[in-house]
Amino acid sequence: MFKRNITFYTPATLVLASLAVMKYQQENECSASNKEGKKQGKSVSGNIRPQFEAMIFRLQDEICDGIAKLDGAKTFRHDNFQRPNDGGIGRTRVLQDGNVFEKAGVNVSVVHGKLNPGAVKHMRARGKDFGTDEPNFYAAGISLVIHPHNPHAPTVHLNYRIFEVENPKTGEVTWWFGGGSDLTPSYLYPEDAIEFHTTLKDACDKHDPSFYGRFKKWCDEYFWLKHRGEARGVGGIFFDDLDERPANADPKLDDREAILAFSTSCLESFLPTYVDIVERRKDMDFTEKEKEWQALRRGRYVEYNLLLDRGTAYGINAKAARIESIFVSLPLHARWEYCHEVEPDSPEDKIQQVLKHPREWAVDTSALKQASFQDIMAEISRRAKQEN
Amino acid sequence: MFKRNITFYTPATLVLASLAVMKYQQENECSASNKEGKKQGKSVSGNIRPQFEAMIFRLQDEICDGIAKLDGAKTFRHDNFQRPNDGGIGRTRVLQDGNVFEKAGVNVSVVHGKLNPGAVKHMRARGKDFGTDEPNFYAAGISLVIHPHNPHAPTVHLNYRIFEVENPKTGEVTWWFGGGSDLTPSYLYPEDAIEFHTTLKDACDKHDPSFYGRFKKWCDEYFWLKHRGEARGVGGIFFDDLDERPANADPKLDDREAILAFSTSCLESFLPTYVDIVERRKDMDFTEKEKEWQALRRGRYVEYNLLLDRGTAYGINAKAARIESIFVSLPLHARWEYCHEVEPDSPEDKIQQVLKHPREWAVDTSALKQASFQDIMAEISRRAKQEN
Repeated sequence: MFKRNITFYTPATLVLASLAVMKYQQENECSASNKEGKKQGKSVSGNIRPQFEAMIFRLQDEICDGIAKLDGAKTFRHDNFQRPNDGGIGRTRVLQDGNVFEKAGVNVSVVHGKLNPGAVKHMRARGKDFGTDEPNFYAAGISLVIHPHNPHAPTVHLNYRIFEVENPKTGEVTWWFGGGSDLTPSYLYPEDAIEFHTTLKDACDKHDPSFYGRFKKWCDEYFWLKHRGEARGVGGIFFDDLDERPANADPKLDDREAILAFSTSCLESFLPTYVDIVERRKDMDFTEKEKEWQALRRGRYVEYNLLLDRGTAYGINAKAARIESIFVSLPLHARWEYCHEVEPDSPEDKIQQVLKHPREWAVDTSALKQASFQDIMAEISRRAKQEN
Repeated sequence: MFKRNITFYTPATLVLASLAVMKYQQENECSASNKEGKKQGKSVSGNIRPQFEAMIFRLQDEICDGIAKLDGAKTFRHDNFQRPNDGGIGRTRVLQDGNVFEKAGVNVSVVHGKLNPGAVKHMRARGKDFGTDEPNFYAAGISLVIHPHNPHAPTVHLNYRIFEVENPKTGEVTWWFGGGSDLTPSYLYPEDAIEFHTTLKDACDKHDPSFYGRFKKWCDEYFWLKHRGEARGVGGIFFDDLDERPANADPKLDDREAILAFSTSCLESFLPTYVDIVERRKDMDFTEKEKEWQALRRGRYVEYNLLLDRGTAYGINAKAARIESIFVSLPLHARWEYCHEVEPDSPEDKIQQVLKHPREWAVDTSALKQASFQDIMAEISRRAKQEN
């Protein structure tokens, strides 16, 4: 048994999909440039940008502080960018080769300018009609991928963003939110998956009782490696194109403010949950074989990001993209073995079975708090049987 | 200084681009299914398939034998496939974690059947008109990627193939050849690049004095990582859609036979040259830092294969693809560091400069044999200056 004598892993898309084509400018300008506008079908008033930006910058600070504190050895390197012409700023923060974490990247971007024709075409295919081929856009978001050293501690990805597109002739604004987070363990610890999902379910339920179920399913579908016939991890939530008022929205909030409140709840729930999970795993003993399995799983993460991830494809084709910010999500080490096979009923087989057959993990908070671990496992098994 | 205490690397696309959609059948059937046909504009007679297949199967045997002998510790694992419905066979051979080589995959495929609509569309975009949306096709090829352990020994990729497409209504046949090989060192040894290119130039020159220059340039363009602004390695040759009679073709040969003769010369020159290069490098001392650099370079190889390679994209989207044969080209280990920088004028900087500014490497065979190493280096510098 040994602990961390080789540096390893890291996956996912850190930089926000649509934010890769950054054309940075003055930070304040981003908010200042906003105009009140009418969304197709729905009127929106006010300016959501300052609130959204304040939220993601605050959460970037809080998350980096929390992760650095848990690491104990390294702090985050800060790289800030501004670009001429169209407006935009990017703040890439990376902690690499620390005590607990191999690579942790937490990016925030705020960009605006002319939407490129490729993006317009892509959005049109998703049913959006901006009434022009050259709309203005504004996008802001936070995105992170964190890879711990210990093979028993899971990788995590998170991304919350807002998009606004404006027809410059009419001033009409189309807007939507996207986001989510998903957990990618190399070894299955059901209590970690339960905690991660249940926290997300609680955050969702406060705003809309339908959100968790829909967005959990979407996540399973979105992070699916079709060429492997397996999920990237144990999932979480994923949503895009969200412009629907949450059912339990505070009547004082307009639609965008209400979805911002929902996004904020999800984001705020992230750090305490992930820290809790990593604290349970970071000092566990592990073998060289377990490190190799982790590296193979990191290889799958690389496959997802380079082969399938929309944001990566978009980013590397963008002229103004900062490739290091896009690829900060890739692991320090990944591994590919020809025809690697796992032993039946081994711990490697157990996680693989879950990846091939995604399960329901969230339980009632009250049940989680009161039930014994055996009760929770029995509940999980019951649900897994129902599905298979 | 240490030698090989961690297992590493391997990149590239082993499985042939268009062969990934394999629908295997009886081996003999492949040749038997051929019909004489007329190529658009050019008439072809006879059946090239048995000759081409015999050549690639022979070369697969010879290359595997030569690589296994050089390795000294491991032999190749043989995996043969046949698939029902349309015809096809695949022979994947892999040597993994040997003494000299980390991963060496040498694949041969022979497939025929109905060409899928995606492939028809893609070929039409390249100017091919088959006169039907549902042509029959036949494709055969050999493809390999070899990754040595020692960071001073280069990775190599090779691929030679023939494609025939038939309009079932008219019997008209369109055919073309493709292929090439390219060398990817982690550290620059000019004599290795010179030997690799000069051998290819000699093989090309025998058949057509224009081929090497054109196909060397095509290789530099094809294996270009645009998001990094660098080549994958020091290049070699690459060609596709080749149906042009080589200038020095033996008058006794028809066009297809003449291009087969050219492909055979290139393929036959591969093993002795690569063995020569690896023999010079395989026992060199290396440091942990050099292994890390090699792993970073392997990461770039993975980027090329997963982000840019046509064959991989085509393969993973094909229903009948054998993913292990496609991904045999991926390294045992790859690494991604955030904002990795090389020291100016270090050996890492030297190879990076060459990757950013591809050079001419081939020299006259007579000059290579008679000139001193200093003379060759002076020639290289002179040419590099001319280009920059």
